[in-house]
Amino acid sequence: MNRPSTDPVALFEAAREGKRLALARLMSLVERGGDAARVLGAHTYSQIGAAYTVGMTGAPGSGKSSLAAELASVVRSEQQRLAILAVDPSSPYTGGAILGDRVRMQDHVTDDGIYIRSMATRGHLGGLSLAAPQAIRVLDALSWPWILVETVGVGQVEVEIAGAADTTIVVVNPGWGDAVQANKAGLMEIADIFVINKSDRKGADDTRRDIQQMLELSSLGDWEPPIVMTVATDHIGADELWQTVGEHRSYLQESGELQVRRNLRVQAELTEIVTQSLEQRVINTMESPETAELKEKLARGEIDPYAAAARLIELSNG
Amino acid sequence: MNRPSTDPVALFEAAREGKRLALARLMSLVERGGDAARVLGAHTYSQIGAAYTVGMTGAPGSGKSSLAAELASVVRSEQQRLAILAVDPSSPYTGGAILGDRVRMQDHVTDDGIYIRSMATRGHLGGLSLAAPQAIRVLDALSWPWILVETVGVGQVEVEIAGAADTTIVVVNPGWGDAVQANKAGLMEIADIFVINKSDRKGADDTRRDIQQMLELSSLGDWEPPIVMTVATDHIGADELWQTVGEHRSYLQESGELQVRRNLRVQAELTEIVTQSLEQRVINTMESPETAELKEKLARGEIDPYAAAARLIELSNG
Repeated sequence: MNRPSTDPVALFEAAREGKRLALARLMSLVERGGDAARVLGAHTYSQIGAAYTVGMTGAPGSGKSSLAAELASVVRSEQQRLAILAVDPSSPYTGGAILGDRVRMQDHVTDDGIYIRSMATRGHLGGLSLAAPQAIRVLDALSWPWILVETVGVGQVEVEIAGAADTTIVVVNPGWGDAVQANKAGLMEIADIFVINKSDRKGADDTRRDIQQMLELSSLGDWEPPIVMTVATDHIGADELWQTVGEHRSYLQESGELQVRRNLRVQAELTEIVTQSLEQRVINTMESPETAELKEKLARGEIDPYAAAARLIELSNG
Repeated sequence: MNRPSTDPVALFEAAREGKRLALARLMSLVERGGDAARVLGAHTYSQIGAAYTVGMTGAPGSGKSSLAAELASVVRSEQQRLAILAVDPSSPYTGGAILGDRVRMQDHVTDDGIYIRSMATRGHLGGLSLAAPQAIRVLDALSWPWILVETVGVGQVEVEIAGAADTTIVVVNPGWGDAVQANKAGLMEIADIFVINKSDRKGADDTRRDIQQMLELSSLGDWEPPIVMTVATDHIGADELWQTVGEHRSYLQESGELQVRRNLRVQAELTEIVTQSLEQRVINTMESPETAELKEKLARGEIDPYAAAARLIELSNG
C-alpha cells in the first residue's frame, strides 16, 4: 500500500473520486487547521454553494444521535446523500468509525450515501469555530447535498456552530421548560425548528406550551419555529421533522433570507479568522525572546508598560 | 478663570503642587485612555514604587464603602495620607465628589490628606483593567503613600483589579458560606485578608468556619489569610484590619514576594495593553472600507475567507 498523501489538494481530488480514506485524512487536516486549511479554502471556494446544511444541537442525552440516525434513514429512503459532522467531545463516533453499540447508526456504515465524521476539540475549543465551517465547505465542494452538523448544546462555541447552519434544529426533552439551563436563551435564539424528543414521556405537552410561550415573548421574524414531537428510539417523528426542514428551506429560498444568512455566516467566519490570527500573534509576541528582555526592563523600572507594548507590537509586525 | 490645561504633563505638574482640580482632570484623562495615558505612563514611570496599594472587593451592600471610610479615619489618626479609588458602577462617589448621604465619608472631604475618586466604566469594562493601574501609577508618582482600590466583587475584571493590589481584602457578610456566588473561587484565590463585616449579625461564626474550611482546602503559600470581624457602622474592627494590612505588608517585604507580585502585575498589564491594542486593530480593520469591499467579494464567491483574512491583516499592518 502506498504511503497516503498529506497534500490537501491531492487528498481532495482523491476524495472526489469517492476514496473514503482520502476524505478522512482531509477532515483530519481541516481539524488541525493551519496552512492546509488555507490551501483547501482557496481550492474549494469556487466549488461550493450547492449543499444545504442542517444544524442540530441539544443537551447531552437528549437523543440527538438517535435522531440523526433516523433522519439518515429518511434521507436515504428519498435516494439522497447525507454527510453527518458530529462536533461533540462525548460523541459516540470516533475517527469516522462508529462504536459497536450504536446499532441504529451501524445500518448506515456500509452505505456509500452516508458519511459520518466526528470532530474533536483537540483541546482548543476556539479552533472548532474555524474547523467546522471549513469541514462543511470541503463536504459541499465534494457534492454532498445534505450536511447535518450535530453539536452538544452546552458550550457557546458548539451552539454557535449549530446556529450557523441553514436550518437549525434544537432538540429538547420533556421537562426542558422547567430546567435551569445556562444556554436556554442562546438556544431559543438560534432555533428554526424545535424537537421535543422522548415525547412519550410525562410533561411533553407542558414543555410544548412552555416553548410556545417563550417563542411568543421573543421578537420573531416571519418564520415561526414549529415544534415537532419525536420518539427517535421508536422511529416516531423523523419523517415529519425532515418535512419541516424542507419547509424551512423553501421559506429561506423564497424569502431571499438564505443568501443573507450565508453572507452573514461567511462574514462571521472572516472576523473569526482575523481575530484568531491576531490572537496567535499576541501569544507569539508574548513568548518571544524580545519580550523576556522587555519584561526584565519593566521589572527594573527602565521602561514603562505602554512603551514596552508599543515596542512589542512593532516587533510583531516585522 | 483660565481655561484649564488638558496637557497630561502640565496637569501632572500642577497636581504635584497640590492642585486638586488638576488631579481630577488628570484622572479623567487616564479614564479616557488613549494617547494621554501613554504620555503619562512615560512621564510617571521613573517616579513610582513608594506607594503601597490595598485592594478591597466584595458584593454590593457588603459594606465596603463604610469600611473604606473607617480605614481612612485610622490612617489619618496615624498622620498618614490615603487615596481611595472606587471602581464601581454603583459607586456612591461621583466625579470625585461624595453624595450628601455618605455622612461618614464626608468627614474626609475637606481633608487634604484624603483623596477620593470614582472610576466609571465608560461603557467598556476592558478599559478599566488598563485605566486602574494607570491611575494607581499617577497617584503613586504624586507621592500618595497609601492607595486603596475599592471594587465591587461581581465582575471578573473588577475582581482582577482588586486582586492586583499589594494586599487584597475580600469583604463578606455573615451567610457568605452558604451563598452560591459565581466569583467565590475567584475571591478565595485573591484574598490576602478576609473581612466578615456586619459580624454582629447571625451566622458570623459559621461564616468564619466556612471560610477557614475553604482555605484549608486550597493550596496556600506561606501566608495564611487571616479573618477579621468588623462592624463598620459601629466603628468596630477597622484598627485590627489596618494592623493586619501592616502585617501582610511586612510579610511581603521580608519574603521578597512584594517585588515578585509587582513584576507579575506589570507583566499582566503589558499583556493587556498588547491584547487591547491588537483587538482595537481587529475592530478598525473590520470596519474599514477595504473590508466592506472584501465582504462583497466573499458574498459573490470571488474570494475565500482565508485569502480575505490574509488581505485584511496585511492592510491592518500597513
